[in-house]
Amino acid sequence: MKILLIAVVMLSHSFGDSIQSKYAETSLKIISKSLTDSTAYNRLGYMCDTFGPRLSGSKNLENAINWILKEMKSDGFENVRGEKVSVPTWIRGKESATLLSPFKKELSMLGLGGSIATPRGGLKAEVIVVNDWDELESRSNEVPGKIVLFNAPFTSYGETVAYRYSGASAAAKHGAVASLIRSIGPWSMNTPHTGVMAYDDDVQKTPHAALTMEDAMMLSRIHDRGDKIIVKLDMNARTVADRWSQNVLGEIKGSVYPDEVVVVGGHIDSWDVGQGAQDDGGGCVASWEAVRLIKELGLKPKRTIRCVLWTNEENGGKGNKGYRDMHMDEMDKHVLAIESDGGVFSPKGFGFSGNDSARKIVEEIHALMKPIGANTISEGGRAADVAPLNDEGVPVMSLKVDGSKYFWYHHTNADTFDKVDFNEFNRCVAAIAIMAYVVADLDEPLPR
Amino acid sequence: MKILLIAVVMLSHSFGDSIQSKYAETSLKIISKSLTDSTAYNRLGYMCDTFGPRLSGSKNLENAINWILKEMKSDGFENVRGEKVSVPTWIRGKESATLLSPFKKELSMLGLGGSIATPRGGLKAEVIVVNDWDELESRSNEVPGKIVLFNAPFTSYGETVAYRYSGASAAAKHGAVASLIRSIGPWSMNTPHTGVMAYDDDVQKTPHAALTMEDAMMLSRIHDRGDKIIVKLDMNARTVADRWSQNVLGEIKGSVYPDEVVVVGGHIDSWDVGQGAQDDGGGCVASWEAVRLIKELGLKPKRTIRCVLWTNEENGGKGNKGYRDMHMDEMDKHVLAIESDGGVFSPKGFGFSGNDSARKIVEEIHALMKPIGANTISEGGRAADVAPLNDEGVPVMSLKVDGSKYFWYHHTNADTFDKVDFNEFNRCVAAIAIMAYVVADLDEPLPR
Repeated sequence: MKILLIAVVMLSHSFGDSIQSKYAETSLKIISKSLTDSTAYNRLGYMCDTFGPRLSGSKNLENAINWILKEMKSDGFENVRGEKVSVPTWIRGKESATLLSPFKKELSMLGLGGSIATPRGGLKAEVIVVNDWDELESRSNEVPGKIVLFNAPFTSYGETVAYRYSGASAAAKHGAVASLIRSIGPWSMNTPHTGVMAYDDDVQKTPHAALTMEDAMMLSRIHDRGDKIIVKLDMNARTVADRWSQNVLGEIKGSVYPDEVVVVGGHIDSWDVGQGAQDDGGGCVASWEAVRLIKELGLKPKRTIRCVLWTNEENGGKGNKGYRDMHMDEMDKHVLAIESDGGVFSPKGFGFSGNDSARKIVEEIHALMKPIGANTISEGGRAADVAPLNDEGVPVMSLKVDGSKYFWYHHTNADTFDKVDFNEFNRCVAAIAIMAYVVADLDEPLPR
Repeated sequence: MKILLIAVVMLSHSFGDSIQSKYAETSLKIISKSLTDSTAYNRLGYMCDTFGPRLSGSKNLENAINWILKEMKSDGFENVRGEKVSVPTWIRGKESATLLSPFKKELSMLGLGGSIATPRGGLKAEVIVVNDWDELESRSNEVPGKIVLFNAPFTSYGETVAYRYSGASAAAKHGAVASLIRSIGPWSMNTPHTGVMAYDDDVQKTPHAALTMEDAMMLSRIHDRGDKIIVKLDMNARTVADRWSQNVLGEIKGSVYPDEVVVVGGHIDSWDVGQGAQDDGGGCVASWEAVRLIKELGLKPKRTIRCVLWTNEENGGKGNKGYRDMHMDEMDKHVLAIESDGGVFSPKGFGFSGNDSARKIVEEIHALMKPIGANTISEGGRAADVAPLNDEGVPVMSLKVDGSKYFWYHHTNADTFDKVDFNEFNRCVAAIAIMAYVVADLDEPLPR
């Protein structure tokens, strides 16, 4: 502790009366506590292992939500509550894709969220493989009655995901009876990736599913050799009536400006595969833990820090819109909203969307995170759950991490707790806690 | 070509009349041809994509064998023939493992080769998780009526594979109704690994299957928390009567000592998952290609080079024993047998099992492979298919490669053609071709 205090004194000398000098000791306390406390890591493991994946509308998700509500209360959070949100409910059902020719093979696949079922008993058709939208257009006359496979190589998630989201309608427009995509990821161990898709209004709805990269590449090679490919697709997916879910809220009330709010959070729901550990159990529990640590350290920020764990980010975004709508009259009092939804790998810092004066302040706060390597501020604070708040003028941030493996696991059965590293996760907790606490404790609110 | 000749002349000067000077030009020709010829790479892709995985007793395997026989003949190999071998035939059938408590989840699994089925309709039991043999012993009284899960972390394949091979009998001895293992691999993307298992004679046969590392670790965590785990295991595996398969042989006849033989080969059969691309389609096709290139370059070795593609390495070893038995009277004329069965990643050189005088010669041959980075000789030439020959006194070698990812793919659905790199594969071809050709062309046979 002596060494720590000397370090703090030295920091104070060099930084003068800046944010850095004012919060140096506190941020080191937060870091020290975060890196050694296993509460959050154990909670994440418990949530993953006890409730399973947490798709909107599922019992698993509501069980996890109810457990969080109970635990948050026992942590002594204030105003712990679930705010009801009606969420779309898609149920995967049994599904399979079987290669019938040139040889018989069960293909590893995952139906895409929102897809309709095949006709009862499945559908059997020849497969046409295209590499991109242009090839689909240019070979339009070959498409009718076939299954279109989009074998689009991964460039970036933002670009390639279009084949997942819109592939069904694009293929159906040319007369396809179903469509398949190469899973959206840069690398694979025969790993299918699911995710949300949607239909255009003016097009026949057809079943839409993802194959693994390996199988998509294999079918593409067979196709290039001129051999005929026949696949049987059998999907029993269905969308049922919307069900009730909840956004989870819990707070540390501000000591001076209790009506001014700093939001931190992630989304509780996940796809119905794996454990939703990186996407986004980790972000949720890290945000929750950040607030718990601030409380446990006896820190009393001037503004309220509100942990918001959104429901239904994955297939509808009803949680974040619901939160915005229910809190519309508080929007001018939302000083900042911080989201963690890019995995809880080694943290790099935060992406920020706000004005230049705010950015200068946030940059100073980043400097406090040098000991955990999270001191880089970047562009792009908007992420799915804080975007509706940003639309209303709220400055927003998203935690940036080493994302090199994120899309290996994203929306797959491999997104499991064992992929979360104790130290990396706890550094994420520390980064969120420091950012939330300092912004909530500033003399002036973050400028808009 | 001029530059190449100058290089050869320079090599000759420095090496004098050694193996290195004598074979420098030829080995560079082999390397140059290997690295640019796509015949073998395309053949491997074709075999993987057209016939699928190749388990002993399957039509896929015999289709692949018949195709190889046809292609080898069209390559102009001499004495191309299939030598009949009776092979064990295990059929996986439908199988599943379902976690029923603490929540419902289909576990990714693969039954282990040789396992019996569950009773019709499956069996449902509580799971006891043990980390090793000792823990099984010490908790013997908890085992009766349960499913034992061996959650043994991967140390080396040689060590950890014991849980796969012998786990069923060990668990049954204590009264288990079935057993599960954590898949034998160092890392996983929810990847189950299959492989062969066997039953002790004096023990009740019980079903035996592999879970993914992720699921095994999850069940272990749940178990450590004291929660009850219930799994339903349903396996329809069966062993039917042995079926006929074939070892494939094809030769370049020796110009001076045609009855003296250098064998090169790998095993054609694979597990019934993935495409058997690294294990061992790659080793097979690389060995085949090595011989084809020697022929195409017009090289006429003094001894016969025989490509042997063994059947049934994976679940019985009947191919290699069959080859030994059928060629027992030639054993003293087998100068060397080279096997490639560790993947066709970047080649490092060969493991060698033979006497010291032979090793000195082989070391000189290795020096020729410096341009492709395969110039390291190491211990351990014995591998499954050449071991029976080594038992009869034949010096043996196995190709050594960068094996860092081999056990990621081994016996999984991810062992697919896309995991084979064109350049790495072709360097394996070059290494095998140089070794086989030079040993076959030496003035004296390799000393025993």
